[in-house]
Amino acid sequence: MGLSHVDKNGVKMVDVGEKENTNRVAKAHALVKMNKETIQALVDEKTPKGDVLNTARIAGISAAKKTSELIPMCHTIPLNYVKVDFEVKEDEIEIITEASAFWKTGVEMEALTAASVAALTIYDMLKAVDKRMSVEEVYLISKDGGKSGHFER
Amino acid sequence: MGLSHVDKNGVKMVDVGEKENTNRVAKAHALVKMNKETIQALVDEKTPKGDVLNTARIAGISAAKKTSELIPMCHTIPLNYVKVDFEVKEDEIEIITEASAFWKTGVEMEALTAASVAALTIYDMLKAVDKRMSVEEVYLISKDGGKSGHFER
Amino acid sequence: MGLSHVDKNGVKMVDVGEKENTNRVAKAHALVKMNKETIQALVDEKTPKGDVLNTARIAGISAAKKTSELIPMCHTIPLNYVKVDFEVKEDEIEIITEASAFWKTGVEMEALTAASVAALTIYDMLKAVDKRMSVEEVYLISKDGGKSGHFER
Amino acid sequence: MGLSHVDKNGVKMVDVGEKENTNRVAKAHALVKMNKETIQALVDEKTPKGDVLNTARIAGISAAKKTSELIPMCHTIPLNYVKVDFEVKEDEIEIITEASAFWKTGVEMEALTAASVAALTIYDMLKAVDKRMSVEEVYLISKDGGKSGHFER
Amino acid sequence: MGLSHVDKNGVKMVDVGEKENTNRVAKAHALVKMNKETIQALVDEKTPKGDVLNTARIAGISAAKKTSELIPMCHTIPLNYVKVDFEVKEDEIEIITEASAFWKTGVEMEALTAASVAALTIYDMLKAVDKRMSVEEVYLISKDGGKSGHFER
Amino acid sequence: MGLSHVDKNGVKMVDVGEKENTNRVAKAHALVKMNKETIQALVDEKTPKGDVLNTARIAGISAAKKTSELIPMCHTIPLNYVKVDFEVKEDEIEIITEASAFWKTGVEMEALTAASVAALTIYDMLKAVDKRMSVEEVYLISKDGGKSGHFER
Repeated sequence: MGLSHVDKNGVKMVDVGEKENTNRVAKAHALVKMNKETIQALVDEKTPKGDVLNTARIAGISAAKKTSELIPMCHTIPLNYVKVDFEVKEDEIEIITEASAFWKTGVEMEALTAASVAALTIYDMLKAVDKRMSVEEVYLISKDGGKSGHFER
Repeated sequence: MGLSHVDKNGVKMVDVGEKENTNRVAKAHALVKMNKETIQALVDEKTPKGDVLNTARIAGISAAKKTSELIPMCHTIPLNYVKVDFEVKEDEIEIITEASAFWKTGVEMEALTAASVAALTIYDMLKAVDKRMSVEEVYLISKDGGKSGHFER
Repeated sequence: MGLSHVDKNGVKMVDVGEKENTNRVAKAHALVKMNKETIQALVDEKTPKGDVLNTARIAGISAAKKTSELIPMCHTIPLNYVKVDFEVKEDEIEIITEASAFWKTGVEMEALTAASVAALTIYDMLKAVDKRMSVEEVYLISKDGGKSGHFER
Repeated sequence: MGLSHVDKNGVKMVDVGEKENTNRVAKAHALVKMNKETIQALVDEKTPKGDVLNTARIAGISAAKKTSELIPMCHTIPLNYVKVDFEVKEDEIEIITEASAFWKTGVEMEALTAASVAALTIYDMLKAVDKRMSVEEVYLISKDGGKSGHFER
Repeated sequence: MGLSHVDKNGVKMVDVGEKENTNRVAKAHALVKMNKETIQALVDEKTPKGDVLNTARIAGISAAKKTSELIPMCHTIPLNYVKVDFEVKEDEIEIITEASAFWKTGVEMEALTAASVAALTIYDMLKAVDKRMSVEEVYLISKDGGKSGHFER
Repeated sequence: MGLSHVDKNGVKMVDVGEKENTNRVAKAHALVKMNKETIQALVDEKTPKGDVLNTARIAGISAAKKTSELIPMCHTIPLNYVKVDFEVKEDEIEIITEASAFWKTGVEMEALTAASVAALTIYDMLKAVDKRMSVEEVYLISKDGGKSGHFER
C-alpha cells in the first residue's frame, strides 16, 4: 500500500519562478452561430434582455480577470488590458479577444476565457429568442512573448 | 438632454418571482479537437501537468456553481448536482454536462458554463503539447422543467 | 484571564431559521454629483472608457448578487431580480435600485450595494474627465415583506 | 483506447434532488496551540495586527458562506446562520463553530470550514509573535437533520 | 447591417502596459449619517450585531482587495496596504481610507471601494436600530503617484 | 465620547511598501486521521465520490490562490507555484504543501491555506464512509526569503 498506487498522475502547477518578465500578448477567437432573425433582433436593438454586445464584452473582460479562479492550474496574472471585439455577420457573431501582461507566463488562457464567457453571455442574452445557437471555433489566434516567441495559428 | 438618449437599451435581469419551482435539468455539449498524438499522450497518462480529465471535470463543476458570477444577467441558483462526462475519441474529446435544480428558472447556462470551462481546462492542461486545439460545438442538448417544458436540439 | 475579557462585543450573524419566506422588495437611492461638462460628455457619448450607464448597471446588478461576500454578517439570498435605473440630470446622475427575493430575510443590503457599486463604476468610467465627483444620498427608499412590513423613508 | 482507461475514478457531486429539506445543524471544533506569552499578548490586547478574535470570527463566518467555492464537490447552501466562538485557555484557543440551514444536504463542511479558516486567521494575526503555533483537533462535534439523524462524535 | 451600428460606444479597459511602476497612494472619504441614539448605542457597545467599527474596517479592507471584481474596467492591483479609519461624531461616523501600491495605475477605486463598503457595513450592523441612516460625501481626498502627480480635492 | 473609546484595538494590514522583492518559499503540514478501513477504500479506489487525492490537491492549490480573500489581513500575492503532496499511511494521510513567490511578503498563509483546504476536501470526499476523521498538526514546516531569513520548525 503506498502513495504511488493511488496518486500516480497528480496535477502540477508549473513553477514560473525562473521565467523572465516579458511583454505577453495573446489573441483568441470564438464564433456564436445563430439564425438570421436573431442577428436582426440584435441589430434592431429588439433583444429581450437589452444590450447584448456590451454586456458580453464586460462579461468577457471580467472573466479574463478571474481566469486563475476558473482554470485550476493557471497562475494569477495582473493584466495590462483585456479587449473583446465583435463582428456581427449574417448568421454569426465573431468574437476576437486580446489580453496582455508584463509577466512570467503567458496569457493565452485569459484571452480564451474572455472569448468563451463573452460567447456564453451572448447565448444567455438571446436564449429567449433562439435556443439553438452554438459556440464554435474557440481557439488561440496568436501569442507573443516569453521564451517560445511568436506563435500564429 | 435626457435618460432615454443615453440609455436606450439597458440590460435587464428577468424577474423570476412569479415563476414556480419545478425540477430543472439541462444538458450541454462541447468538443475539444486535437491531434492524435495529444489524445495518445492523454491515454498514456504522459501529460505535462498531470490528470487532464478529472481536473477538467472539477473545473467544470466548480464553474457551474459560479455561473451567476460569470454571466451578468444570470440568477444565483442552488444546484442539486452538476455532472461532467468525457468521451475520448481518436482526435477529439467530447464533453457532456448536466445540471439540475428545483428552482424558478432554468439551468441551461450552468450546463453550458460547465462544458465551456471543462473544455478550457483541457486546453490548459495540454497546451504545452498542442496549441492548435480548438473548442467546437458548444450547445444546449436538452432542457426540462418550467413552463416551456421539454426542449431537445 | 478569560474569554469575556478579550471578546466582549463579538459579531453575530442573525439566525433567520425561524423567519418565514415572504416576498421581499427593497429600493435604494444614490446620487453621483459631477460638473455639467462631465454630464454633457456622457450624453454626447464622448466618454473615454465607453458606455458609462450600462456598465454601471451591470456592475450594480453583479455586486448585488455578491452582497453576502462583501458585507460580513449578510446572508446569502437568491434574488428574483435586481434593477438599476438612472436619471441623468444637469449636474448629477440619480441611481434608483430595486432588489427582490422570496426569502427569510430582507434585501436592503442588496439594493444598497447595487446603488453603491453602480455609483463607484460611474466614478471609474468618468474619473479621467473629473476627479471631483462625489457620491451622495445613499439610502434605503423603501422595504416590503417580513414581519416588520412596509417601511418608507 | 477508451474513456474507461483514462477516467476510471471520476469525481462525483452527489445528487441532492430527492432529499427533503430539513433543519440542518452542524458543530465543529478546532484548537490553535500557542505558547503562554502569545496568549498573554492577546489577552492584553498587545497584538501587532489588532483584534485577533473578532477578525478570526468574521473570517470564519465569511469562509463558511463560500464553502462551496473551496470544497469542489460541495453544494451551495443558503445558511440560516454561522456562529464562531472562542475559549481562550492557558496555551491554546479553542474554536467552536455552528452552522445551520433548512436544506436538502448537511452543513458539516460549512462548520468545519468556519473552524479551519478562523484558526488560520488566528495564526495570521499572531504569526509575527509566534510562528510555531499549530492547528489541532479539527473535527465534527455533532450533526443534526436529514435522513441519518443525530450524530455525535 | 454592421458592427458600428450596434456597438458604437463599447467599453474599454485602459492599456497600462506603457505606464511606469510608481508609488501610488490614494485617500478617500465617506460619511454615515445617523441619529444620536444610534451613535450612543455604538459608543456604549450596545449594538445588536456586535462590534460595528472593526467589522466595517475588515469589510472595507477585504472589499478593496476585490475592487477589480466589482468595478468592471478596473485592473487587478496588488496592494501594499489598505487602511480604514473612523471618527465617531455626534450624529455621524466619518470614514477615511487609504490604499497604496507600487504599480502602473492608480488606486483611487480601491480607496473609494474600501470607504463605500465600510459605510455599507456600518449600515448593516446598525439597521435594526435605525433604517434612516444615509451615506454621504463619498469622494477622493487625494492621490499621489503616476504621471499626473499630486491631486488634492 | 470619542473614537478611542470604541475602536481601541483596530485591525491593521501591514504596509509592505518598504519591503524588497525576494524569493519566498513556505512549506506547511497537515494530517488527516482516519480509520484503516477508510484508508483501504481510498487505496482500492472504492470511495463514494471518486478520486480523493487529486480533488484535494486541486482544492488546495485553488485555495492558496485565494488566500487573501479568506484571511482578512493577507496581501494578494501572485504565486510562482503551489504544490500539494500526500503520503498515505496506515491510518492517516500526511499533507505537505509548498508555495512560492518573488514578492515583498511571505507566503506562509498560502501554504497553510493549501494544507487546510486539502485536508477539508479529503474529509468531504470521505465523510460518507467515516465522520470521525480529524485534521491534526497543521503547522508551518519552514519559510525562506525576506529579512527574517530561514525559519525551520
